[in-house]
Amino acid sequence: MKEVVVAGVGMHEFGRFPEKTVIDMGVTATERALEDAGLEWKQVQLAYVGYLDQGMAAGSRILFELGRTGIPILNIESASCSGNAALREAHYAVATGRCDIALALGVGKMGRLMPAYTSTDPHEEGLRRAEGIVQAGAPMAMTARRRMVEFGATMDQYAKVSVKAHKNASMNPYAQYRKTCTIEEVHASRMIYDPLTALHFCPTGDGAAAAIVCTRAVAERWGRKPYVSIVADAMGTGLYRSPRRKAENLTGRVVREASEQCGAGILDMDLIQVHDGFTVEEVLHYEALGLAAEGEGEKLIDEGVTEIGGRHPVNTDGGLLSRGHPIGPTGLAQIWETVTQLRGEAGARQVENARQGLVQCVGTGDVCFIQVFRR
Amino acid sequence: MKEVVVAGVGMHEFGRFPEKTVIDMGVTATERALEDAGLEWKQVQLAYVGYLDQGMAAGSRILFELGRTGIPILNIESASCSGNAALREAHYAVATGRCDIALALGVGKMGRLMPAYTSTDPHEEGLRRAEGIVQAGAPMAMTARRRMVEFGATMDQYAKVSVKAHKNASMNPYAQYRKTCTIEEVHASRMIYDPLTALHFCPTGDGAAAAIVCTRAVAERWGRKPYVSIVADAMGTGLYRSPRRKAENLTGRVVREASEQCGAGILDMDLIQVHDGFTVEEVLHYEALGLAAEGEGEKLIDEGVTEIGGRHPVNTDGGLLSRGHPIGPTGLAQIWETVTQLRGEAGARQVENARQGLVQCVGTGDVCFIQVFRR
Repeated sequence: MKEVVVAGVGMHEFGRFPEKTVIDMGVTATERALEDAGLEWKQVQLAYVGYLDQGMAAGSRILFELGRTGIPILNIESASCSGNAALREAHYAVATGRCDIALALGVGKMGRLMPAYTSTDPHEEGLRRAEGIVQAGAPMAMTARRRMVEFGATMDQYAKVSVKAHKNASMNPYAQYRKTCTIEEVHASRMIYDPLTALHFCPTGDGAAAAIVCTRAVAERWGRKPYVSIVADAMGTGLYRSPRRKAENLTGRVVREASEQCGAGILDMDLIQVHDGFTVEEVLHYEALGLAAEGEGEKLIDEGVTEIGGRHPVNTDGGLLSRGHPIGPTGLAQIWETVTQLRGEAGARQVENARQGLVQCVGTGDVCFIQVFRR
Repeated sequence: MKEVVVAGVGMHEFGRFPEKTVIDMGVTATERALEDAGLEWKQVQLAYVGYLDQGMAAGSRILFELGRTGIPILNIESASCSGNAALREAHYAVATGRCDIALALGVGKMGRLMPAYTSTDPHEEGLRRAEGIVQAGAPMAMTARRRMVEFGATMDQYAKVSVKAHKNASMNPYAQYRKTCTIEEVHASRMIYDPLTALHFCPTGDGAAAAIVCTRAVAERWGRKPYVSIVADAMGTGLYRSPRRKAENLTGRVVREASEQCGAGILDMDLIQVHDGFTVEEVLHYEALGLAAEGEGEKLIDEGVTEIGGRHPVNTDGGLLSRGHPIGPTGLAQIWETVTQLRGEAGARQVENARQGLVQCVGTGDVCFIQVFRR
């Protein structure tokens, strides 16, 4: 497999853009990624476009605006991880020699409703619906309650995850929420699923994000330095919301595979992005990834370990909680942040001497992607 | 790139199955493909699942019923060509050494409404909607009218395409319509878009189709003979409904690429499957593929060239018109038919001495796939 470099990244702002279509936003993100890479649209040989519920063949509808170059355009859906899936397929297409330059694009435009929590077990889903537990937030609220009993977790700790996210997003020009908040404000926000108030949840929204990947040879000819390579790209399916059965922890399984691919463990990462759809979920992923032992994830928050400036900064761009989560582009926003940081171009939220970063995303369908980037 | 063999194919019947979910049908098609290949689910290393509008992460929801083996499951959408896209990605994953055994699955469950015709040009789409031309059938009706004026085509000729499709489907146990019909019955069916009556249109419906692809080495260990290899797999995007601008004919461009890949031209093919969403569309594809010169496609119908037993049998399983078109699985049904024919297992509709077959599919987003199989 050839070494693959992320030649360019681009984003359309995340937020609410009722006047814009996914075509508008996808074009902007792609144009920005092309400009960043120093490449033209006609040089791109293959495109993967990730989205959920944006009509038929959205990839073509977006990219034809840039010109009908005739290249293969494939549309990918992997729930919250659709952007990671687009990057993965573009990456492997280049790595295996199918082409030299590929685009991964993710787009999303949502209503105000969060997608319903969908269990992979129809009987379980029937039960959940009967009980009104149709949003992923409800099981998360139950998890928070259980951790308070089992591990002595506090709502202050979970609120601090939201405070961190808002602080990081306040320094990210593409973030949906760019205002800091306090622990008290998190507690005082509208109650959604007791004990989780609104600021424990990621918002719905619109946006787009893109990455151009290419061979090292192409990067050396056109790309700008420093080159950021994809050194691991692992994916698995299975049980992930199963805190009782550690052996089946999906993120744990996939991160081990990624570590083998890149020869570096989670503690070697200079920055980490995780799927923080909910404050408590970020803490669960600390443990699943191996940043903390079971029941000790909340301590990392108290100790500031996952702050920018801490030992293991997590969700440096504000994460799903504050940068936003329009589903299709989310994974590529994680990748945009990682590449931006590894290049040393993250401005006020720059992690010092960032050399390698890990992206984790999980989604409905019990999927998990782990992608590691290195400059 | 390694030689890739279609080790097994399987279908769930096409038709209306209000009591079944895409999970039920997808499981059946996959189990049949595994049985056909002589493989077990746990041996499959990677899966691509093609569908349109079946909710989030349908691939996982279906395949987890067979067991949570943890493999990557990617969901693909390419409008009518979603099944071809799944096959393409599974094929290249094996060809480039990402894995040895991969599954391509397509599933579909539709309402009674055909998907609206979606132009890639929002302004054009707005115009069409304003004019009430929101179904692909309307431009096809206009094309039929124009060809009657320009080339002297007749409605009898187009009706014969439907008669051929119904005859072939009557010999296909998985087809949606398994009754023959006459030219008079086609003319007398309900008028949809003048001059096209109902039997000029493919039906909506439900179904699933699957293919297991593997390396030659795996096939020689487990597969049953004769081995059917994928010898071309080309895809492009661009203008395809542009009969006035031959240079931009997308099918023509992609079939040339496929011919280069497999070293054989369209006239060398023993059987051909095309996207016959409408009778007139089948004739357009004869010309686009190079089976007939411009304006002469209808002659092939009159002369029986594309019948089973003719020089170039087209849509031997009944095509979209009669085998059915549940969108997600359509391309994999084309592939199921081609593999079945190349193995000599097509029963009453068997094409004698079939050694190589071509599959063409086009779809919204102006995409075209051409895949060639050889025993």
